[in-house]
Amino acid sequence: MSMVIWLTGLSGSGKSTIANALNKHFNFTVLDGDELRRGLCSDLGYTEEDRIENIRRTREVCKILQSVDVNIVTAFITPFESDRELAKIILKDCYIVWIKSSLEECENRDPKGLYEKARRGEIKNFTGIDSEFEEPHCVDLVIDTEKNNIQECIIEITKFLKGKMI
Amino acid sequence: MSMVIWLTGLSGSGKSTIANALNKHFNFTVLDGDELRRGLCSDLGYTEEDRIENIRRTREVCKILQSVDVNIVTAFITPFESDRELAKIILKDCYIVWIKSSLEECENRDPKGLYEKARRGEIKNFTGIDSEFEEPHCVDLVIDTEKNNIQECIIEITKFLKGKMI
Repeated sequence: MSMVIWLTGLSGSGKSTIANALNKHFNFTVLDGDELRRGLCSDLGYTEEDRIENIRRTREVCKILQSVDVNIVTAFITPFESDRELAKIILKDCYIVWIKSSLEECENRDPKGLYEKARRGEIKNFTGIDSEFEEPHCVDLVIDTEKNNIQECIIEITKFLKGKMI
Repeated sequence: MSMVIWLTGLSGSGKSTIANALNKHFNFTVLDGDELRRGLCSDLGYTEEDRIENIRRTREVCKILQSVDVNIVTAFITPFESDRELAKIILKDCYIVWIKSSLEECENRDPKGLYEKARRGEIKNFTGIDSEFEEPHCVDLVIDTEKNNIQECIIEITKFLKGKMI
């Protein structure tokens, strides 16, 4: 039985880093938000409607990948609670992991320079700036990437995973 | 290296039957048009634009499945030549197989009663009736399900597959 680790968190919180670690250590297949937006979801923008559709398609791809017994880790902001809940309802063995970091910290990191662009108004509907990130409640694990360094975070999610795989 | 067997043909030509046989005998993963329209593509209709988007998403899902080394057989009408050509360009080891049967024969079979509905005008943009099925030219194999029975067709595509797998 394959599982889905569904990461949720602000841009710059460390989702892709954690996802790539799970790929490296456990051979989980990464579905990355940025990548899907260049492919499957290239027709979508960042309105609320399009964000919901983006996540709906991601869930559907997870279903297809689960049908061939692939373990998946998704790295999408997933800003809306209803979309996280739907992932848990629709997918088998789906665990929501909040990659937690404050907006201030994510904005300081700004690895892709996106917050700067959003503050200058060059990007509209940017999560945390002018589009909401609803606080996650239906979470199975919280990984705080602000208080802990990346190695500690990877150890923590690895422990969680091993517990679920037994 | 995983491969994609991309079936193209009218509704009722036998695509799903052939696809299920490849699933049974070679463990190919089936991407079925009807199924995807209930899931990933549930937001799409049957206009030319929507049909093109339907096939675009299918190609993207094939890319994702190929990234995890899964062999795929797709069962979609794929009425437009440009979409078939794009599949061959974008996907690795992608073979276009025309599941060939005349409109008259498909309409006689009408396994889902769809042609009858289309003739009565209850379904619009139905391929073969009021939406075009462009004759396939970029094909790697033609399976004639009108002249041959289903067992003969499966033997033929099996031979083709074995040749490609060596």
